[in-house]
Amino acid sequence: MRFYIKHIDNKSRTGAIETARGVVNTPAFMPVGTQGTVKAMFPEELKEIGAEIILSNTYHLYLRPGHEIIHQLGGLHKFINWSGPILTDSGGFQVYSLSSLRRIREDGVEFRSHIDGSLHFIGPEKAMEIQAMLGSDIAMAFDECTPYPAEYEYAVKSLELTTKWAGRCKEYCESVKRRIAETEIKRYEDSGNSPIHPFTHSPIQSLFGIIQGGMYKDLRKRSLEELMEIGFDGYAAGGLSVGEPKEEMYEIIEFIAPLMPEDRPRYLMGVGDLVDVLVAVENGFDMFDCVMPTRNARNGTLFTSRGRISIKRTEFKADPDPLDPDCNCYTCRNYSKAYLRHLFLSKEILSMRLNTIHNLYFYLDFFRKMREAIDNRTFKQFKKYWEEVWTGHPR
Amino acid sequence: MRFYIKHIDNKSRTGAIETARGVVNTPAFMPVGTQGTVKAMFPEELKEIGAEIILSNTYHLYLRPGHEIIHQLGGLHKFINWSGPILTDSGGFQVYSLSSLRRIREDGVEFRSHIDGSLHFIGPEKAMEIQAMLGSDIAMAFDECTPYPAEYEYAVKSLELTTKWAGRCKEYCESVKRRIAETEIKRYEDSGNSPIHPFTHSPIQSLFGIIQGGMYKDLRKRSLEELMEIGFDGYAAGGLSVGEPKEEMYEIIEFIAPLMPEDRPRYLMGVGDLVDVLVAVENGFDMFDCVMPTRNARNGTLFTSRGRISIKRTEFKADPDPLDPDCNCYTCRNYSKAYLRHLFLSKEILSMRLNTIHNLYFYLDFFRKMREAIDNRTFKQFKKYWEEVWTGHPR
Repeated sequence: MRFYIKHIDNKSRTGAIETARGVVNTPAFMPVGTQGTVKAMFPEELKEIGAEIILSNTYHLYLRPGHEIIHQLGGLHKFINWSGPILTDSGGFQVYSLSSLRRIREDGVEFRSHIDGSLHFIGPEKAMEIQAMLGSDIAMAFDECTPYPAEYEYAVKSLELTTKWAGRCKEYCESVKRRIAETEIKRYEDSGNSPIHPFTHSPIQSLFGIIQGGMYKDLRKRSLEELMEIGFDGYAAGGLSVGEPKEEMYEIIEFIAPLMPEDRPRYLMGVGDLVDVLVAVENGFDMFDCVMPTRNARNGTLFTSRGRISIKRTEFKADPDPLDPDCNCYTCRNYSKAYLRHLFLSKEILSMRLNTIHNLYFYLDFFRKMREAIDNRTFKQFKKYWEEVWTGHPR
Repeated sequence: MRFYIKHIDNKSRTGAIETARGVVNTPAFMPVGTQGTVKAMFPEELKEIGAEIILSNTYHLYLRPGHEIIHQLGGLHKFINWSGPILTDSGGFQVYSLSSLRRIREDGVEFRSHIDGSLHFIGPEKAMEIQAMLGSDIAMAFDECTPYPAEYEYAVKSLELTTKWAGRCKEYCESVKRRIAETEIKRYEDSGNSPIHPFTHSPIQSLFGIIQGGMYKDLRKRSLEELMEIGFDGYAAGGLSVGEPKEEMYEIIEFIAPLMPEDRPRYLMGVGDLVDVLVAVENGFDMFDCVMPTRNARNGTLFTSRGRISIKRTEFKADPDPLDPDCNCYTCRNYSKAYLRHLFLSKEILSMRLNTIHNLYFYLDFFRKMREAIDNRTFKQFKKYWEEVWTGHPR
């Protein structure tokens, strides 16, 4: 993986992540494909609307269908028919938020499946092994996601565990690389390709570390410094958007972003409200993921250039206009609000398809325009414009 | 509408229905789009897999979103973004099968909506008006669908009502045509276009009559003769596949088909089991509709060139092969049985999409091959081959 910066506008920046499977322009939005599919979308449709990378959930794929099966079938890309880059999370967050009866031990977490109650154990090595077998392009270190609120004492212990696990994740990756004969690496590098994982036969993954520390700035700083000591291809802020007030989240974002290495991608995990994204990009974050556009689409909440709308409202009953006259997506080019309302009320699958296409297109288009604004050094105006659209007042 | 026969192989035949919105090759399968969408499918996808006509349900669209709204928005084709031919049923069957508290009167049926319990009335004129406002290409006369089993006495009365209503439907259409100035009709005919409905501005609809009579041959014959007396653009056999044993259905099919006018399309309503289709085509039927491919797809039952399979079976857990190695659909070209099983067990929307594409492709492809067999006068072998695939023994 190579990362380079293109333009800087104050603290925000545009750049590109080059992976063996394609280039990701940053700031980037990653649609979420939890169970090996971005819900309701074909891979070709994702590409057509401009998705350059997707996120898949290690926890879900580990439980079903199982990473061994996916590996046996040629890896996640082949399994789901997506040839572009994939980032897999570490499973840490889902273990805490979805499973029951979790017991955190020094070497990992024991938990029960949310699907069938079966007992499982994932630690740093296991998390890396699962991700290696899935064959994603960017793997995340296994972390303990500090909940909100958390006592200082708890946050310290959680941070220490996360650092320790991060080190073990790194060591796992190093050991994989050691298993590749030096000549082999050289051969691949000479041919311009990436080195290949010795037993999964996928390109070697990049590894990102995850900063924890709750809402305590000193702990966030310490967490980041300890991760930098270990050394990662990219750094992510975890444990945000977990229930804390927005202002607390903004404080951490504004505090931590400038401390993160400039020459590595900075990833803000799970934050996808576009108002929050603007704050994060303003402070120098590069990567985002969120279920917001896809989940909202299925619930009938749609993003437009004039703000959010709920498609079920009676006023759209006979409305011949598209969702968003400024939008060029398939849905807006071909269907009326009246039809979308009808499909939603009738609980038709087409409703979820058309809404998802629109919302994802809106998000990806928003990121395109945001990158353009940074390139043109007009991000400040861009941010002000959109804050007015959504909140009625710039922040 | 023009209908002509291309080839005849014993009693089966290939032909084409030319409508203002496109040509339908017969024998034809019509995917069912009950609520203004063939579930899970974009119109472009339907075209791509070879659908030449779809069916929509008058009853459902009348209740939601309402035919006036669809009319106001430019008609059903524009509303749902499908430019090809549409056949609308009369609503009769759904009034009987879905609504509660129905009271059959001389002039129509009073019933309660299955959605909100509201009280409605549809008679022959109303059914024609709704269909005219939807702007479908082929409308069906409003009938009373004789249930199974039915006493002879009941079947007679039901048939008489159906004939009477059919006459009133025809009269409604004639009155519409009378409202078009003769010169106007001439102008359209000279230009090679179809005449346009005076108040819906859609091409004038064709009207098909529906044969009832239960399982009584003499009543079926009488029903058909009375409809032919009135005169329709096509004739349909209704009231079949309503719970009767297959052999009884086959008897009626074999009895009635040869009596139906040769120069008009013969439509067997709601029969879609391909074993039954073979019997019907063998006897000279031309048109079919059924929810079987789409509904089965959503339930994980898939049609293949080696028979039906249930995608949830454990044996497919790590199966890298496509559903059907002989199939050229998008699903079979890109995905493994293992992935399809995973999506189905995970209740993903993509499961319904991929399964629906496959099953509809299988159906439409089957009809293509069947037409080819008739053209080549090899229908008998074709039928025998498929009966062996599905039932293990030719009928």
